[in-house]
Amino acid sequence: MSSFITFEGIEGCGKTTQIQRVAELLRSENHTVQLTREPGGCPIADQIRTILLDADNRAMVPETELLLYAAARAQHVAEIIRPALAANRIVLCDRFTDATYAYQGFARGLDKNMVSHLNSLATGGLIPDLTILVDCPVSIGLGRAKARIASSSGPREERFEQEALQFHDQVRAGYLQLAAKNPNRFRIIDGTAPIERVTAAIHQQITTYLTSHTG
Amino acid sequence: MSSFITFEGIEGCGKTTQIQRVAELLRSENHTVQLTREPGGCPIADQIRTILLDADNRAMVPETELLLYAAARAQHVAEIIRPALAANRIVLCDRFTDATYAYQGFARGLDKNMVSHLNSLATGGLIPDLTILVDCPVSIGLGRAKARIASSSGPREERFEQEALQFHDQVRAGYLQLAAKNPNRFRIIDGTAPIERVTAAIHQQITTYLTSHTG
Repeated sequence: MSSFITFEGIEGCGKTTQIQRVAELLRSENHTVQLTREPGGCPIADQIRTILLDADNRAMVPETELLLYAAARAQHVAEIIRPALAANRIVLCDRFTDATYAYQGFARGLDKNMVSHLNSLATGGLIPDLTILVDCPVSIGLGRAKARIASSSGPREERFEQEALQFHDQVRAGYLQLAAKNPNRFRIIDGTAPIERVTAAIHQQITTYLTSHTG
Repeated sequence: MSSFITFEGIEGCGKTTQIQRVAELLRSENHTVQLTREPGGCPIADQIRTILLDADNRAMVPETELLLYAAARAQHVAEIIRPALAANRIVLCDRFTDATYAYQGFARGLDKNMVSHLNSLATGGLIPDLTILVDCPVSIGLGRAKARIASSSGPREERFEQEALQFHDQVRAGYLQLAAKNPNRFRIIDGTAPIERVTAAIHQQITTYLTSHTG
């Protein structure tokens, strides 16, 4: 049975590491897993991602940012996610529509109805079956994200990681509100726990979901 | 007094040549003219334009295309058009919101309410003062566009010029319907006339508009 599972959380929460570890575990159990991410996931969406994350694009207005995320998502859903679900895969996606609500809606203060309209246009109504929110305090997440940047070879920080602490606090609060409003879909995982423990917690949630939905 | 004047028409109608000739004429009369174009007009929008016009991006779904145009427009309006109007310039813009209605709404059949929503989000409600529709039959327009591509050094046709004749017929019909619905804003110019005569006709329309609006 196909399942569409998204991973969300602030920068440095560990979701990108965790999604890979969980994918490995699920594959070792003979599940057919497709790993993907937003923004990006296919060539056209990757071209859009490059514009979004380029630190030189400081002049970008919030409306442009919102529309570029929606454009990348529309392509990603049509070209990657829907075909993978049609092929009965478990799709693990690093960020999806909830990220737009948390970042553009809650933190940038863009009109939530417009965000909702754009998400609908981009996804054609596709909603994740399960959303793993890897939650951690901003002080911990940004510390990890900065350490990662410092140790990488790239000379430029990514645009979002330059944002103020307050912005990321609003993103985190936005995610927690989304989780509170959608308790059936969201699972909140403590991202401050040791890496193995976080993986085990996520794996358990996914296993429980898969078991209960395959009968 | 600032004026926002857009130029519209199918591929090969001559609008890009005409906008430059008219800009020169207006400048020779001491008007402060700013020439710009869509998609593009500023670095971020130009990056989006590159994705939109790349013939390799054949997999692009209509929703992605629509959202990319809106994203480029949001940036162009905020960064270029509004500041130029605030500085009391005459802004001549090669394509604007009507192009989205004609191409994505009429010809691709996307929901016109959604097109309208996206145009509003992208422009913040900015509407051209005057729109010059350079009209010509598709057989003439596409003939010119193909001749231009054949004589250029670029190896790749642009994506839109590969579309079927029927598509461009729908674009033309879409533009003519928009003109019929907005008679106060639109001026239809016969694009099959000799180049000098087309320039003179456009220049006359703009001069009449400017005279009647500066008192």
